[in-house]
Amino acid sequence: MKKSIGPKTIVFPAPAFVVATYGKDGKANAMTAAWAGICCSSPPCIAVSLRKATATYSNMVTQKAFTINIPSENLVKVVDYFGIATGKEVDKFEVTGVTPVKSELVNAPYIMEFPFVLECRVIRIIEIGLHTQFIGEIMDIKADDSIIGDECTLEIEKVKPVMYAPEVRKYFGMGRFLGKVFHIGRDLI
Amino acid sequence: MKKSIGPKTIVFPAPAFVVATYGKDGKANAMTAAWAGICCSSPPCIAVSLRKATATYSNMVTQKAFTINIPSENLVKVVDYFGIATGKEVDKFEVTGVTPVKSELVNAPYIMEFPFVLECRVIRIIEIGLHTQFIGEIMDIKADDSIIGDECTLEIEKVKPVMYAPEVRKYFGMGRFLGKVFHIGRDLI
Repeated sequence: MKKSIGPKTIVFPAPAFVVATYGKDGKANAMTAAWAGICCSSPPCIAVSLRKATATYSNMVTQKAFTINIPSENLVKVVDYFGIATGKEVDKFEVTGVTPVKSELVNAPYIMEFPFVLECRVIRIIEIGLHTQFIGEIMDIKADDSIIGDECTLEIEKVKPVMYAPEVRKYFGMGRFLGKVFHIGRDLI
Repeated sequence: MKKSIGPKTIVFPAPAFVVATYGKDGKANAMTAAWAGICCSSPPCIAVSLRKATATYSNMVTQKAFTINIPSENLVKVVDYFGIATGKEVDKFEVTGVTPVKSELVNAPYIMEFPFVLECRVIRIIEIGLHTQFIGEIMDIKADDSIIGDECTLEIEKVKPVMYAPEVRKYFGMGRFLGKVFHIGRDLI
């Protein structure tokens, strides 16, 4: 018998991605977003939801471009800071010391120190409520050589990604290998 | 210097959620979905993207309701099976032995053995490309007593969730605690 806990926004895992954009003045900004995920395989797209109050929201509407920067464990303090501070008041890159690099594909910066980044152009803006969802077509992924495996896949064991737990507000690392997709379920057939 | 690996749908972590629905005939079906995530805090909403070819797609369009079932590690084989088999050909509940329970809030089943479930009504359907995105308003969360903590939060350490790694197609468990959100980033200020 399950208990009702009310209509909360809890899923596990949630991501901890950093969205990077340019302001009207060409200044790079970045913020952490957990309300995000891949939303289409072809064209390859990712959705990220933002509150209108954020500097990133305005930048996305103006520039129609953003990058999603996927952190490793060692960047978790930077990720958290990007979620605390506002680009309207401080230069978050200056404070954290990480490096914005201008994408050659879209008018947005990506962050050099993050192991891989998705370069996206905004193709849809969907008003939902407190959050507005931006759907971005993934134009390319740029990755550090050290995490690229055979056939241009990315080795998650080397990335050591960060997962976010909503409501309890904690970050966790990646755990043990549980099995291969489209494989371990065959035991049940 | 980062390398281009092309426009792929890779993010870490991606989730491994199970979407459960009823068919026109009232038969419960379930499938695994990784292209999903929370997309709004108020109203609380979750987005999940499906290919039109799936039985779940047709069920969502018809019933305008679904549940998101969050797995624990011990359910990973069931999760994988739900991603392999098609509800058009087999009764996935019969094969896996897990139990569909009719939601009292929406016209969809949830799965008893999963530690917590989100009961959702479809409020938007967005055509993107190969995938169609369904936005569901979260009407309630039902959770096992054993994972409910203080103030009706859910204890991720007891859930032991599953993360999915796209492209390399592997499942992983949750890892070590890295820090508190809106807290560890203050070290940088």
